[in-house]
Amino acid sequence: MKIICQKEVLLNAVSIASKAVSYKKNMEILECILLIAKSNELTLIANDTEMGIETIVNEGIEIDEAGMIAVNARMLNDVIRKMPEGDIEIYSDEATYVSFKSGDIVFDKIPAHGGETFTLLPNVNYNYNFKIYALTLKDMIRQTIFSVAGEEANRMMTGELFEIKNDHLRIVSLDGHRVALRQVPLREHNDNRKVIIPARTLGEISKIIGDDPEEEIWISISDNHIMFKYGQTRIVSLLIDGDYYEIDALMTTDYSTRVVVNKQSLLECIDRSTLLVRDTDRKPVVFEIMDHVMKLQLKSEFGSMNEPLPIEKEGKDLMIAFNPQFFIDALRVIPDEEVILYMTNPKYPCFIRDNSDSYIYLILPVNF
Amino acid sequence: MKIICQKEVLLNAVSIASKAVSYKKNMEILECILLIAKSNELTLIANDTEMGIETIVNEGIEIDEAGMIAVNARMLNDVIRKMPEGDIEIYSDEATYVSFKSGDIVFDKIPAHGGETFTLLPNVNYNYNFKIYALTLKDMIRQTIFSVAGEEANRMMTGELFEIKNDHLRIVSLDGHRVALRQVPLREHNDNRKVIIPARTLGEISKIIGDDPEEEIWISISDNHIMFKYGQTRIVSLLIDGDYYEIDALMTTDYSTRVVVNKQSLLECIDRSTLLVRDTDRKPVVFEIMDHVMKLQLKSEFGSMNEPLPIEKEGKDLMIAFNPQFFIDALRVIPDEEVILYMTNPKYPCFIRDNSDSYIYLILPVNF
Repeated sequence: MKIICQKEVLLNAVSIASKAVSYKKNMEILECILLIAKSNELTLIANDTEMGIETIVNEGIEIDEAGMIAVNARMLNDVIRKMPEGDIEIYSDEATYVSFKSGDIVFDKIPAHGGETFTLLPNVNYNYNFKIYALTLKDMIRQTIFSVAGEEANRMMTGELFEIKNDHLRIVSLDGHRVALRQVPLREHNDNRKVIIPARTLGEISKIIGDDPEEEIWISISDNHIMFKYGQTRIVSLLIDGDYYEIDALMTTDYSTRVVVNKQSLLECIDRSTLLVRDTDRKPVVFEIMDHVMKLQLKSEFGSMNEPLPIEKEGKDLMIAFNPQFFIDALRVIPDEEVILYMTNPKYPCFIRDNSDSYIYLILPVNF
Repeated sequence: MKIICQKEVLLNAVSIASKAVSYKKNMEILECILLIAKSNELTLIANDTEMGIETIVNEGIEIDEAGMIAVNARMLNDVIRKMPEGDIEIYSDEATYVSFKSGDIVFDKIPAHGGETFTLLPNVNYNYNFKIYALTLKDMIRQTIFSVAGEEANRMMTGELFEIKNDHLRIVSLDGHRVALRQVPLREHNDNRKVIIPARTLGEISKIIGDDPEEEIWISISDNHIMFKYGQTRIVSLLIDGDYYEIDALMTTDYSTRVVVNKQSLLECIDRSTLLVRDTDRKPVVFEIMDHVMKLQLKSEFGSMNEPLPIEKEGKDLMIAFNPQFFIDALRVIPDEEVILYMTNPKYPCFIRDNSDSYIYLILPVNF
């Protein structure tokens, strides 16, 4: 194999493929990126067995000799990054070493592997396709991924529900204490369908998505896999098996107290209250809701905080308490200046939702 | 005690005093900053027993009731930082709690300590004084502190030599494998004197120094202490006992090979070579010095690097090898575009020095 490629082009492709490299499993081949040079393009593949990424470079590249080689992803990234601007030559005579050259600078005898032992992306028959603006997807992931459960949880809770229903895409995550839901209309008709996607896959995809507001991402689904196609990059991931929780049953619109409050003030106030909270002793923040004012209080061995916030209130007065971090997480990703809270009683969840239901955040209260 | 102070003024003072707070010794009082309010000023003091800092606020402050209280430095910093812009009121009726108020926001019952248990800065009779531009001192510290030895070393090696001699200030550090030396002329006459200052003290001082090129720092010395006075801040530190190593004896000007090379090219080349080095297996970078060219090579199990650099050479050809990190550390802080290396043979140190001896970096070679 012998190729010549511009540094920046190569670095970008390596950075994309690296998102599917796994260092956790302590298997050398999973820490590698496979380079395949043929005709006029270079394909880079990484695959951690749950998620695989393939990205193609066909501009800013010259293929002098076809071939393939698998190189440790960190080494590949570091060598390219530390080379000066300009063209980099990558060549390999046999499958055990690879060399890099830029001007007079030579990196030689870098250990490598043949491509035979490398698992390519699975060949899947997809039976469902839709598309969405990539930046919209990136936003929706950012606005929901924080309430996915940790890895010790039920497997379904470590993923996010993607549900296409009535030509809307709905993304849902939950961890047993809270639910995050985002919903957007799709521009074309699509049949109803739902799948559960590992949060890790979604996290990596949102890192790959750039900032072009016109660029779309194509999503294809099979029984066991999902594929995202974004520019020259394909991401293929296993789906999580199972019937997701009945979200609609949770999403009542009943309430007895409705509060409109400035989002930034509420966020800063709750954030301040966490100064008095240590991990070992999760004290709740108490909302005391009255006409025109909501008093927030937090008491711990480290002190007490008291702050009144001006609000618009409808319905009954209420005292209710929450894990402050759950409110912070939701408020941080809500784009609106004002938020509306719907509550019923101190035992019943609080809903933060906008009038068009483009987002709903459900947060369970705690005892106080 | 009761004071009202602008947030930014308070935050700046707390940030300065925090540099002498120690969390290592697991003693609550050492994690505190003492606030002393009297007449028209607030004094903040922290003291980790080796180094103490005292800083005075007398603008943007109103003292309503004199008094003193010691507050955990992290809590103090966090509460002030998370308050909105504007005035912050700090008050305390007794010595066990302190309260903060900004507008309607109240932080109450924050645990605190009386001032009695707090160790103030020592009263010392200083018998030697000089001054220097603060930014010059900051530069000199940055350009030498990296070659101080770790804490496991001989106590003297964990400090830096400050030597006033012939109206020059010379700062020296060494760790057994290398020496860093910076020297500047002083503007006024001073008697000769030398002391060893803990590197930690110097590191914290360089963080406190701002970017005003006109501001000076006053340095006072006694038998056991050194005091730095910078604006409204005094830093007092214990000195390290002992006779420092005989630096002049090391600093020969003999050489048999003299190389002039572009600093940035040499730095980038050596930095690249470290891609092939892992902590467990410190391979040296080999310099092969010939007429007009110096070839740099590094070989390890992770590959080999080869790069020729154009040089001007005087004297004999030479092959010599170094720990790449020692060269990187020195080259990073040298401000010149070109550096001059003086070498004698593969066993004898390399000197990087400018023509006016404003800096000298001595690096011992290694076997290859």
